[in-house]
Amino acid sequence: MTIRIAISGYGNLSRGVESAISHNPDLELVAVFTRRNPESITLRTPNVPVVSIDQIEQWKDRVDVLVLGGGSATDLPVQTPELAQWFNVVDSFDTHANISKHFDNVDAAAKKAGKVALISAGWDPGMFSLNRVYSDAILPDGRDYTFWGKGVSQGHSDAIRRIKGVKDARQYTIPVPSALEAVRSGTNPELTTRQKHTRECFVVLEDGADAAYVENQIKTMPNYFSDYDTTVHFISEDELKKNHSGLPHGGFVIRTGTTGMDSEFKNVIEYSLKLDSNPAFTGSVLAACARAVYRLSNEGKSGCVTILDLPPAYLSAKSGAELRAHLL
Amino acid sequence: MTIRIAISGYGNLSRGVESAISHNPDLELVAVFTRRNPESITLRTPNVPVVSIDQIEQWKDRVDVLVLGGGSATDLPVQTPELAQWFNVVDSFDTHANISKHFDNVDAAAKKAGKVALISAGWDPGMFSLNRVYSDAILPDGRDYTFWGKGVSQGHSDAIRRIKGVKDARQYTIPVPSALEAVRSGTNPELTTRQKHTRECFVVLEDGADAAYVENQIKTMPNYFSDYDTTVHFISEDELKKNHSGLPHGGFVIRTGTTGMDSEFKNVIEYSLKLDSNPAFTGSVLAACARAVYRLSNEGKSGCVTILDLPPAYLSAKSGAELRAHLL
Repeated sequence: MTIRIAISGYGNLSRGVESAISHNPDLELVAVFTRRNPESITLRTPNVPVVSIDQIEQWKDRVDVLVLGGGSATDLPVQTPELAQWFNVVDSFDTHANISKHFDNVDAAAKKAGKVALISAGWDPGMFSLNRVYSDAILPDGRDYTFWGKGVSQGHSDAIRRIKGVKDARQYTIPVPSALEAVRSGTNPELTTRQKHTRECFVVLEDGADAAYVENQIKTMPNYFSDYDTTVHFISEDELKKNHSGLPHGGFVIRTGTTGMDSEFKNVIEYSLKLDSNPAFTGSVLAACARAVYRLSNEGKSGCVTILDLPPAYLSAKSGAELRAHLL
Repeated sequence: MTIRIAISGYGNLSRGVESAISHNPDLELVAVFTRRNPESITLRTPNVPVVSIDQIEQWKDRVDVLVLGGGSATDLPVQTPELAQWFNVVDSFDTHANISKHFDNVDAAAKKAGKVALISAGWDPGMFSLNRVYSDAILPDGRDYTFWGKGVSQGHSDAIRRIKGVKDARQYTIPVPSALEAVRSGTNPELTTRQKHTRECFVVLEDGADAAYVENQIKTMPNYFSDYDTTVHFISEDELKKNHSGLPHGGFVIRTGTTGMDSEFKNVIEYSLKLDSNPAFTGSVLAACARAVYRLSNEGKSGCVTILDLPPAYLSAKSGAELRAHLL
């Protein structure tokens, strides 16, 4: 028997979830819900209905876990608690500063409905969080560092696109190699924002736009760029399409810390990801989390959880005995 | 209120557990049990009794979790099931081929006694296993590789010491850099034993010993060395003490795999450890696992578990709300 998964929304992340489901034989995609006209959407999975979000309640007994493909800014704060009244849900809420509030809202809704809701799944928050927590628990006398990239930041790319005269843009976040090395050496450096990452921008101008103006607007943009060493390249639309159409990402979580009665031993724990496609990988994490949510729900659990609450074995399609025999 | 931890044995690993407890304010060392004369042992923690193992049963209501410092060859297969009749226990059983059998034995004993027993904690099995399982769950279409080192293998050092004419020895296991690079590139190479690791031996000869004989005995030793490119250095006892007295270790778990509907995206997940002291780090993992076992036991759970069954948050001294606010 397969686990029946539905997806709400059909953007990049939802398509990542869809492809992950297609590679996991124990998971089955049973429906995609959309705010758009369902007829305008063609799934890549054959024979799966696209349904108006208005009819989602009618599906509450036909779906084991609903994966939400929405965004953290406006979609998920509303959708996750609302949909948890009918479904076990998984979201990728990634506004770190608001996770505690989102957790409380979703927890209340899910507990009331007797559903399990997993929030903030993905790789950061997600796999990176797991590594921060494990490493902090093992090396309490230590310090952790998270670096992102090299990868495309959608938020920063969007910010550039809003500047007058910009036709299109892609922004890469890049960890500073010397900062990574300093961290790995165990010297516990204090690193400023500028010392940790650089930002590289590829910008297509509209006809007649003022390049100097655009470059200055980017480099002085508060929050997004002004605290970073930023490089701006003006390129053609063809070049952007040819060389910068992907959504690669990745990064590093490094904890250095001491062990020994007199803290005499140094240790470095490093976790890194290198991803050709951020949404496809994030979708794969969400699919594995949906499996775990299904199992928690079958145990009679309810309420909001995060990946920090999931026994690792619950994410795997393999049985406990298989895992012990082959992966432990 | 602290969690009352006891340790059985007082070798390198037990001292690692002791030092980890000293750095975790929520954990308290309440006793060390030994097969030796208790008076011959001086703990590094003040005011903690050293007790004969013969009296261990009398402590069953004064200890929340007993951490076993014994070895996998002969100690743990007997001790873990036996001690699980009186205590929640944690061991570091690391003979991969026998884990399933050990699990079944310990599970029967722990279930009968209503205790929680965690086996095979440490870094491999342990943290490396976690990373193999998470990565396998997220990237089912992929392949994982584990490399060990650079680090001291106690088993291989012991094997050299048993050769006639050898006074002392230290053996380092070293991953082959080109193999690591090939794996990271995502080409899924087939690697032989010889292609993955080299072995470097530092040997102190007894007076008048035959160096050529010793070197040949090492390099042709089945299972231990004959399948590897092995280098042998003869050094003085002073040099061994000065430069090779530590027990550093570490290694890499790398999974490469594809995502995307047509498996069009490559991904690399890499986890690595660099440890000045293998037993001190392993002891730190066992201490964090003892915390998790205490929590499982308080929930009324019983039976054998591994680190794959522990919600990550259970290993941390921080509350769920703290973890969500600061580490998620």
